[in-house]
Amino acid sequence: MQAKTIPSITPERFLEIRSKTEQICSSLEPEDVALQPADFVSPPKWHLAHTTWFFEQFVLSEFDKNYKVFNPDYAYYFNSYYNTVGDRVLRAERGLMTRPTLKSVLDYRAYVNAYMASFIQKGLASDLEGIIEIGLQHEQQHQELLIYDIKYIFGNQPAFPTLHHTVPLTAEPQTQDFIPIEEGLYTIGHQNEGFCFDNELGQHKVFLHAYNISNRLVTNAEYIEFIEAGGYEDFNLWHAEGWDYIQNEKIKAPLYWHNVNGAWMQYTLGGFTAVDGHLPVAHVSLYEAFAYAQWKGCRLPTEFEWEVASSHFNYGQLWEWTNSAYLPYPHYKKVPGALGEYNGKFMVNQMVLRGASVATAKNHSRATYRNFFQAHLRWQFSGIRLAK
Amino acid sequence: MQAKTIPSITPERFLEIRSKTEQICSSLEPEDVALQPADFVSPPKWHLAHTTWFFEQFVLSEFDKNYKVFNPDYAYYFNSYYNTVGDRVLRAERGLMTRPTLKSVLDYRAYVNAYMASFIQKGLASDLEGIIEIGLQHEQQHQELLIYDIKYIFGNQPAFPTLHHTVPLTAEPQTQDFIPIEEGLYTIGHQNEGFCFDNELGQHKVFLHAYNISNRLVTNAEYIEFIEAGGYEDFNLWHAEGWDYIQNEKIKAPLYWHNVNGAWMQYTLGGFTAVDGHLPVAHVSLYEAFAYAQWKGCRLPTEFEWEVASSHFNYGQLWEWTNSAYLPYPHYKKVPGALGEYNGKFMVNQMVLRGASVATAKNHSRATYRNFFQAHLRWQFSGIRLAK
Amino acid sequence: MQAKTIPSITPERFLEIRSKTEQICSSLEPEDVALQPADFVSPPKWHLAHTTWFFEQFVLSEFDKNYKVFNPDYAYYFNSYYNTVGDRVLRAERGLMTRPTLKSVLDYRAYVNAYMASFIQKGLASDLEGIIEIGLQHEQQHQELLIYDIKYIFGNQPAFPTLHHTVPLTAEPQTQDFIPIEEGLYTIGHQNEGFCFDNELGQHKVFLHAYNISNRLVTNAEYIEFIEAGGYEDFNLWHAEGWDYIQNEKIKAPLYWHNVNGAWMQYTLGGFTAVDGHLPVAHVSLYEAFAYAQWKGCRLPTEFEWEVASSHFNYGQLWEWTNSAYLPYPHYKKVPGALGEYNGKFMVNQMVLRGASVATAKNHSRATYRNFFQAHLRWQFSGIRLAK
Amino acid sequence: MQAKTIPSITPERFLEIRSKTEQICSSLEPEDVALQPADFVSPPKWHLAHTTWFFEQFVLSEFDKNYKVFNPDYAYYFNSYYNTVGDRVLRAERGLMTRPTLKSVLDYRAYVNAYMASFIQKGLASDLEGIIEIGLQHEQQHQELLIYDIKYIFGNQPAFPTLHHTVPLTAEPQTQDFIPIEEGLYTIGHQNEGFCFDNELGQHKVFLHAYNISNRLVTNAEYIEFIEAGGYEDFNLWHAEGWDYIQNEKIKAPLYWHNVNGAWMQYTLGGFTAVDGHLPVAHVSLYEAFAYAQWKGCRLPTEFEWEVASSHFNYGQLWEWTNSAYLPYPHYKKVPGALGEYNGKFMVNQMVLRGASVATAKNHSRATYRNFFQAHLRWQFSGIRLAK
Repeated sequence: MQAKTIPSITPERFLEIRSKTEQICSSLEPEDVALQPADFVSPPKWHLAHTTWFFEQFVLSEFDKNYKVFNPDYAYYFNSYYNTVGDRVLRAERGLMTRPTLKSVLDYRAYVNAYMASFIQKGLASDLEGIIEIGLQHEQQHQELLIYDIKYIFGNQPAFPTLHHTVPLTAEPQTQDFIPIEEGLYTIGHQNEGFCFDNELGQHKVFLHAYNISNRLVTNAEYIEFIEAGGYEDFNLWHAEGWDYIQNEKIKAPLYWHNVNGAWMQYTLGGFTAVDGHLPVAHVSLYEAFAYAQWKGCRLPTEFEWEVASSHFNYGQLWEWTNSAYLPYPHYKKVPGALGEYNGKFMVNQMVLRGASVATAKNHSRATYRNFFQAHLRWQFSGIRLAK
Repeated sequence: MQAKTIPSITPERFLEIRSKTEQICSSLEPEDVALQPADFVSPPKWHLAHTTWFFEQFVLSEFDKNYKVFNPDYAYYFNSYYNTVGDRVLRAERGLMTRPTLKSVLDYRAYVNAYMASFIQKGLASDLEGIIEIGLQHEQQHQELLIYDIKYIFGNQPAFPTLHHTVPLTAEPQTQDFIPIEEGLYTIGHQNEGFCFDNELGQHKVFLHAYNISNRLVTNAEYIEFIEAGGYEDFNLWHAEGWDYIQNEKIKAPLYWHNVNGAWMQYTLGGFTAVDGHLPVAHVSLYEAFAYAQWKGCRLPTEFEWEVASSHFNYGQLWEWTNSAYLPYPHYKKVPGALGEYNGKFMVNQMVLRGASVATAKNHSRATYRNFFQAHLRWQFSGIRLAK
Repeated sequence: MQAKTIPSITPERFLEIRSKTEQICSSLEPEDVALQPADFVSPPKWHLAHTTWFFEQFVLSEFDKNYKVFNPDYAYYFNSYYNTVGDRVLRAERGLMTRPTLKSVLDYRAYVNAYMASFIQKGLASDLEGIIEIGLQHEQQHQELLIYDIKYIFGNQPAFPTLHHTVPLTAEPQTQDFIPIEEGLYTIGHQNEGFCFDNELGQHKVFLHAYNISNRLVTNAEYIEFIEAGGYEDFNLWHAEGWDYIQNEKIKAPLYWHNVNGAWMQYTLGGFTAVDGHLPVAHVSLYEAFAYAQWKGCRLPTEFEWEVASSHFNYGQLWEWTNSAYLPYPHYKKVPGALGEYNGKFMVNQMVLRGASVATAKNHSRATYRNFFQAHLRWQFSGIRLAK
Repeated sequence: MQAKTIPSITPERFLEIRSKTEQICSSLEPEDVALQPADFVSPPKWHLAHTTWFFEQFVLSEFDKNYKVFNPDYAYYFNSYYNTVGDRVLRAERGLMTRPTLKSVLDYRAYVNAYMASFIQKGLASDLEGIIEIGLQHEQQHQELLIYDIKYIFGNQPAFPTLHHTVPLTAEPQTQDFIPIEEGLYTIGHQNEGFCFDNELGQHKVFLHAYNISNRLVTNAEYIEFIEAGGYEDFNLWHAEGWDYIQNEKIKAPLYWHNVNGAWMQYTLGGFTAVDGHLPVAHVSLYEAFAYAQWKGCRLPTEFEWEVASSHFNYGQLWEWTNSAYLPYPHYKKVPGALGEYNGKFMVNQMVLRGASVATAKNHSRATYRNFFQAHLRWQFSGIRLAK
């Protein structure tokens, strides 16, 4: 991963980013934080601890001679997918750990933060700056996942609790225009000075044929038309795999939607509320995005089409499904060692989403950013932009 | 269920029994109480609320005109298997409810306790005495399940937390004698004045052929001999179904046992400790009890043999697997309505255990008591008594 | 198993029994014989070969010095649950073996038959007579299973093929009487000279309280009343486990029944036909038998009640579910070695059926015979007799 | 799909292609043809009938007024994924149909062939030529699948039967050269007169950066080095999903390989034989191809790199995994109606393979052909070409 970071690493910036994580969790009860209601969800406590463990493992334990490990068991509890670093708790068993308590995990955060702040204060070699920057980007990615996971935990229990940290959507222009982009050879990939992940590097040329792309996301009102036209019952619109999926899971609408006496209601972090037709539709799978586009006689853009066109529209409310599979760029090289596990190992059977969402950290969005999820997932903040 | 209760229902007795439940949970953290790590486990919070709901539903809502329901949603959240009474949360989804919080549930308990105490104070018709007695017996059953479930939650996470409410076993006579019982016609079932469940009624005669039964339970030391003799590798000793089960689950020892560098260690509610050879072996399935008996050239007693012989030995440390399936007694009648769901519906594919355990409420044990579990379960406090 | 056989083992009797197996299969196509559509079904080819392997393995290979094994691989292919004798093909993988062909398996039968006939001709020691008698009884048990399995294979494919070997039911007396049996001490288990299986031995006394038992089986017309009264929708009538089972499997009627425009039709080995209300209802699970009895205000008899009353009614059309679990008789001893695996290892989580069915070999039925199946199974020829 | 077919449709060409299907099956026994040992396998009988049904459904029933349907049930039995045309037998239940017999299916083929030959003889409109051409291409695709499926059926039963129709691999040049290809703008997709599938159309430009590609496939000897170097034990080489897959399935070598006393043996359609180090390695998943390439410090080519370089090397022994996901070309349009279901609906979570295999029909291979399979599948004839 690239590390020509602007702004640079300071104790203030470090602590500010870290404190955002706690702010998101500030209205959670201890009962809320140890649960894993689905394989793709992690308990909030785990996010709080895992992001902390990153700094302990890759910075303090290796480079700060004064550092005493907070609790030697935590490396085992809170490692995630880093096979390189010792044994780890299986992803699906993260929800079995009621201990350490939330309070202990918050103490762990404070302890590591204090060491990190004074470590940064002493000045950093540039490679260490790079590692800490990755840790902060990683923290911000988990801030977004935290919001997804809390929403999933709250949205799947009968009491529908609310979170004080809400992330409301706003209406986009209701008039839809299709922006024309000319055919040509375009440069793709991260090109400037700021931070990026390794999967954005390998700047390269891509030839695009002419296409048109929508100036805004598909709205709830438009999506309800699709539902009411029988979109979920017409296999012709769906991938074979998507069709099987919605049959097996009995899916008839976006995640968190409920039809109450004929009216569409939804769970949001602010509570149970009517679906607002003017807002962009969220919490759809790639299958649903694809079927909607088929029904409209359109298609989803590729990630390259999206990147080239992105200066012509606003984005940032919802991650936008593209019809590109998540694959390496031509000159992509996996970094050796634990940090190299970060991205390359996921480059099969996932689809790229571009843009950002209302749950994304403010300074954590750029036109070259490549997010990725499996085609069936819906708990992330995902939406639909059409191309043709 | 029979209700010639001695002692009778008083506010003091009611509150004393109820407070025991909270005592068991007093050292739990809020993070511990919302988890369901296996289908057969319920979250501690659910036990606390469900036992309370029983009194709200079957006593206060029906018979106390002053009563205001604490929270109308709780009937939906905390109903268990009582299909008669409205919708309910699926058993396997009990662990998805982080809310209401532990504190709210304890408030619910206090609220219902206060109403119940004053309701009892006013005097009770005898049928109401019967219902409340069942509620208290039900509470005590859940006290035992709470201990099983807490042990399972703590014993399956890497930090192995401890509970301040421990229930240690003690050594039985180390000399094994086989007590001879003569053939004859014996009377089985509840015969005296005290409380019993409906499955103990239907007093009836059973003819028993002569048999011998051990004066004590099988010890850990004896069970280790079985392990070391290859008991878990010899399919000849096992039920076909039991053999498949231990292969699939890779079972090589009782639940909570770990072989650490050749030494047998185990998780107990007091911590991780060496297995004490003098204590009775616990946490075995019916399959394991059966295989052990086969290996010893013995067998398990039937529930009738156990009941007839029970005055000749001490029991009460561990529920003892019998080789009797859980089936109705000759004159068994299912009570109509919600309370009738209590026992009869489980009378298939479960095995009877007799006696009591160190986790059983003190006044909740008698020679006619019929406990029952599926043959593969091991998280209950179960042990082995041999017959031949 | 006991072996005071009358009639004795002669080449004629041996070949007559064996040829019945081929008669059952005579109208099968080669395509029909290699299929295993469910775990509890075995391919017809496997039955043909496995019953032959029994004589090769336990008689010829051990006692006939002239015998040359037909094909040394067959012992591996066609062993069933006899763990004692080498490796074996997993039960669920029996349906993957397209080879050897049906023709090869019939050659195998002829080859072993010829050796057996001449071996028997030379005269047999009495223990050998016992083993061969078991082999013939085993063959006859598989003749019945063959009919179950062929029906399942034919009844679950869209073409509904027919078998020339049909086993039609006949109407029983349409007037239902309940035969009263007095309380008393009765002797249970095999008591006379003929053959029996080891699970019938251990003759012993059982005390029965007074009861009444129906003179005939429940009819299709009566069962349709139960269906139409909403029996499959009222959880109060069902075991908890049975209720879950019919929900998960979406069961609304006996196996092989189809509701075609409001009329009940069924697949039989003779073809697709209307359900005849006068005939006994067949292909029900224990759960359904139990629920029906609950709905009628009756119950199922125990196996002891059935055995004692069996001289007072006709039986033999359908195996009759009892409410007794399949457990050892008091003096039951597992025979050591491979033949000892026959019965004892199945004595958990199965229910006893008594009587016989139209698919049972003629000389293979007696009042003490203990058949057993898991409570959810329905492909066997099972029916319902009420008691109260 | 495009239909400027050269050669044109004649009765002779039609029957020649059709007869090849029967030739492949000529040494099968009836027992072999009704089995479906895995979800991705279809019974040989089903292939024989399904390819025939295509002509009955899309040609004769629609355009030949003289045609009488052979058996009206067959449309239901032998439809595959064409949801547009009536109900169909679920893919996973194809293996439950023992009837119609092999003989009936061969009769069906002869019947339809006779009608088709005389229908073609009369002369065809050009759109009908197109449909028949698709039917023949479809037949040839199933000829290849037949070989895969027969190999799977034979290779997963203990008797390891052989097929008289073998498709042996031959050694490629043992010296490995990497062919350099210059960066530039290339045209991709079907460009000439012959037949192609719709997924090859949408000719378009792709910019490629400079790369190198191997002149030959990876050999068994090279792959054994990878195995012996611990390739299957080093998670660093694998996709996260691939690593989980080989752990769960306990995969340690290509499909059909067995380690017998330290020597690598394999099942081939000609029998069980030693692995020949000079031949190309076959029956690997995308995961294994990727891991091998990682281990070699190389990578897999994209499908565009493969297509551009394909004139520089020989191909045709094994389908070659590319690192391209199966996605639509820029101007791809799904054909409306039943035939439109052919390709587009599979364009998610599959990877492209290029080239052809020894099991591919001779006139059925071209540089633009896009084959596709899920990343974990191994029963197809797949191999590895490296790029860097």
